[in-house]
Amino acid sequence: MPRRSAAHVADSRASAVEAAVDLASVVGLEGITIGRLAGELAMSKSGLIGRFGDKEAMQRAVLAAAVERFTDAVWRPALRSEPGLPRLEAVVDAWIGHLRDRVFRGGCFVTTASVEYDARPGPLHDDVAAAVRRWLGVLEAEARHARAAGDLPADRDPTDVAFELHSLASGGGVAGRLIGDAAALDRTRAAMRRAIGLPPASRR
Amino acid sequence: MPRRSAAHVADSRASAVEAAVDLASVVGLEGITIGRLAGELAMSKSGLIGRFGDKEAMQRAVLAAAVERFTDAVWRPALRSEPGLPRLEAVVDAWIGHLRDRVFRGGCFVTTASVEYDARPGPLHDDVAAAVRRWLGVLEAEARHARAAGDLPADRDPTDVAFELHSLASGGGVAGRLIGDAAALDRTRAAMRRAIGLPPASRR
Repeated sequence: MPRRSAAHVADSRASAVEAAVDLASVVGLEGITIGRLAGELAMSKSGLIGRFGDKEAMQRAVLAAAVERFTDAVWRPALRSEPGLPRLEAVVDAWIGHLRDRVFRGGCFVTTASVEYDARPGPLHDDVAAAVRRWLGVLEAEARHARAAGDLPADRDPTDVAFELHSLASGGGVAGRLIGDAAALDRTRAAMRRAIGLPPASRR
Repeated sequence: MPRRSAAHVADSRASAVEAAVDLASVVGLEGITIGRLAGELAMSKSGLIGRFGDKEAMQRAVLAAAVERFTDAVWRPALRSEPGLPRLEAVVDAWIGHLRDRVFRGGCFVTTASVEYDARPGPLHDDVAAAVRRWLGVLEAEARHARAAGDLPADRDPTDVAFELHSLASGGGVAGRLIGDAAALDRTRAAMRRAIGLPPASRR
């Protein structure tokens, strides 16, 4: 049998990671095991181990891929808007759209991982915390810009704004899915807009 | 050996439930197994099964006990305040206090359970969703009272207010624990107060 090309191996590693992201969004990062993922992908365990090394390396790759999906869906499109308030408004819309699209089969990946690792020290905790801190930093920089431009009150703390947007999206996404409230994402969007001083706007 | 009294059995069931609540707040409701809990309590598996029946019955008892702890800590004290805005303000303070006290070893129990079961149908999903719906209904009734009394704007939807308070406490509690931000609960409190039209107030 000919050796498979490096490109083929990279492709199949990427597909394994994407399948694992979907699986982990339902069962949690702790819930994916090499055995379970091998079953899902109809691959051998040894094949998967060859690709990832060990369970923790696989979990870290999965988390990184999930963060990348979020960035692609929520942050990159917002870069087309002007810095400051217009960009924050675009982020809110993209974030709600992302939650509405159910990009992750089991709800927001980073929120699920945050809950899994908030009380469990280790490399996965550190990776999730670093991803959330980076995202809060990005939101805070935009809020600071908006304040400097006079689009947010001078006494509004940009760190508070960032934390509030994150809390609303995270908590609102979870509660809405749980109770099956179809209007939950509209409520979340209105609350996020209020947090940056915008009117609730027409419900979509 | 004399038969143990019914009161003794009830006591030891209650202590087992309380220990399981703490364990589940760290490892999740799915993470508690009869075996693990038996180890934690230095009891036999058969003794635990005798007390609870099966794993699901144990998980449901644990969830009910956790909801009871929350109600004791956050809702019952607020009943001393007048209905409407004063009571909502008291709820916010008690809720933040509850998160600050780390009543649950691993963070807010209901948020953890919400994330575990938002995509997993079954009796546990239904129990968590019912508990969250009841709590949202309680908050909504107070917001409606506050609006009728003129303490909230006439165009402020009481369902939105309830959902926003819940999202902020849930999302803010998780993110703050995860990133180890000591000011996170102050930020959450200020945001919850803003949601009910109150000034952020001095940070405690």
